[in-house]
Amino acid sequence: MPHPFDPGYGAEPFRTLCTNYPEAPTYPQNHFRTEWGPVFHRGRLDGSARVLVIGQDPAQHETIARRILVGEAGHRIQGFLAKLGIDRSYVMVNTFLYSVYGQGGGNQHAHDPAIAAYRNQWLDALLIGTQVEAVVALGTLANTAWQAWKATPASAGVNVPFQHVTHPTFPEGAGGSNPAKHAALTAQMLQNWNAALPILRQAITHPDTARPLALYGSAFHAGDLVDVPEEDLPAGSPPWMRGAANWASRTGTGQKKRATITVTVPPAFMP
Amino acid sequence: MPHPFDPGYGAEPFRTLCTNYPEAPTYPQNHFRTEWGPVFHRGRLDGSARVLVIGQDPAQHETIARRILVGEAGHRIQGFLAKLGIDRSYVMVNTFLYSVYGQGGGNQHAHDPAIAAYRNQWLDALLIGTQVEAVVALGTLANTAWQAWKATPASAGVNVPFQHVTHPTFPEGAGGSNPAKHAALTAQMLQNWNAALPILRQAITHPDTARPLALYGSAFHAGDLVDVPEEDLPAGSPPWMRGAANWASRTGTGQKKRATITVTVPPAFMP
Repeated sequence: MPHPFDPGYGAEPFRTLCTNYPEAPTYPQNHFRTEWGPVFHRGRLDGSARVLVIGQDPAQHETIARRILVGEAGHRIQGFLAKLGIDRSYVMVNTFLYSVYGQGGGNQHAHDPAIAAYRNQWLDALLIGTQVEAVVALGTLANTAWQAWKATPASAGVNVPFQHVTHPTFPEGAGGSNPAKHAALTAQMLQNWNAALPILRQAITHPDTARPLALYGSAFHAGDLVDVPEEDLPAGSPPWMRGAANWASRTGTGQKKRATITVTVPPAFMP
Repeated sequence: MPHPFDPGYGAEPFRTLCTNYPEAPTYPQNHFRTEWGPVFHRGRLDGSARVLVIGQDPAQHETIARRILVGEAGHRIQGFLAKLGIDRSYVMVNTFLYSVYGQGGGNQHAHDPAIAAYRNQWLDALLIGTQVEAVVALGTLANTAWQAWKATPASAGVNVPFQHVTHPTFPEGAGGSNPAKHAALTAQMLQNWNAALPILRQAITHPDTARPLALYGSAFHAGDLVDVPEEDLPAGSPPWMRGAANWASRTGTGQKKRATITVTVPPAFMP
């Protein structure tokens, strides 16, 4: 069986962008897990993207897979894109190259010019003179990143429809482990997403698949979560890296937890 | 600071080879850790390689870095290549795409035609009409892989000098944790390597750096172990993935151990 994969960053301008990326002091190590290295993107870099998604920062699954939005948030947003008829013609970048460490670490750097300067090079490459038809920002920091790019002279010629939606792991972040609160926040998020979907759908005139718009209910249902496509991960990546099972966790406490990621093959894939 | 990286498998024939690779039943899961996915190579795929190294199989570091020979064996062979003046003009492939599981698992598949057929496609791509000046096989299984390729009609026009040397983790595999035995086996291995070095050096007429041949002593000394070059790993890989510290381990026992790899950032890289 053929296994398509993401060819990565061999072509310009991405080759140069992935060779020259900001580290400390642009990303201070007390607020970012720079020790795990930057994670750059997911999706099409060949000019075929119709939708650009701006996320926040990579977590443990993304750090191992070396592509963004592959964990729970990734499955939710993959389903969101599928509702728009977008199965492969997307590209995703994050607000931050590195995983945010500590409460509020991201907010303190939302307006850092050096962080924005590098991110704006990616947005220039993905938006100026391309066929992207819509931009989606996941959460407040991604919205701030978008507004920062819109304030640059280079963006002046780009008039692409934009929607700021609730971040896909908002229910976990804000609701924690309280099931009733989690359910209420999920419903609130999906209502927010439902408001954005028709606007985005109208903007996207070249979907991969034309399908009727099915809005969300008050919770995620079967079909609302979609696996990461095989062609989004590096060559040889095992299939469970694209699946819904949790396969990477930070273990221990304190500094040990920060230093450790444990990768576990889900039982369904073991002999 | 620029961070060169391995652009990977975007160009043919490697793109097709990394899209269509053997899985079970060619690689039976009772003898190979196929659940972690294949790991294909390390080094130059752009035709600039002067030395081809054939290794055995990927272990835990290689599984996470998605490149072969990056752990202890990799540091030893990187030092071996440096003695030959080869700092970047090499390419490495393994006998097996997947990590061998269990005692003797590899030996049972040393002569499997389907495993050889795919591996031979890589050897064809790396050796026929290229500028490779020497081939080094690490260990018995790699030697068998080489002989299998030499028996193919396609190899007939290739007359490249070849050396079969002791596998770089032979002392650990055969000596275990007995320090005296480990030291004796290391000395034995380095004597074997010393016999191969002058022959290889004579064969390599285009080294990256001309330097006097410094043979090994009876143990590894300072300078005999060399870090994996930055340009060998995927974009964004953190620097400790190329270093000598042990950063990946299989934890637990039995099936849990097989399913788990724990990645730990070495203390020197933590804040």
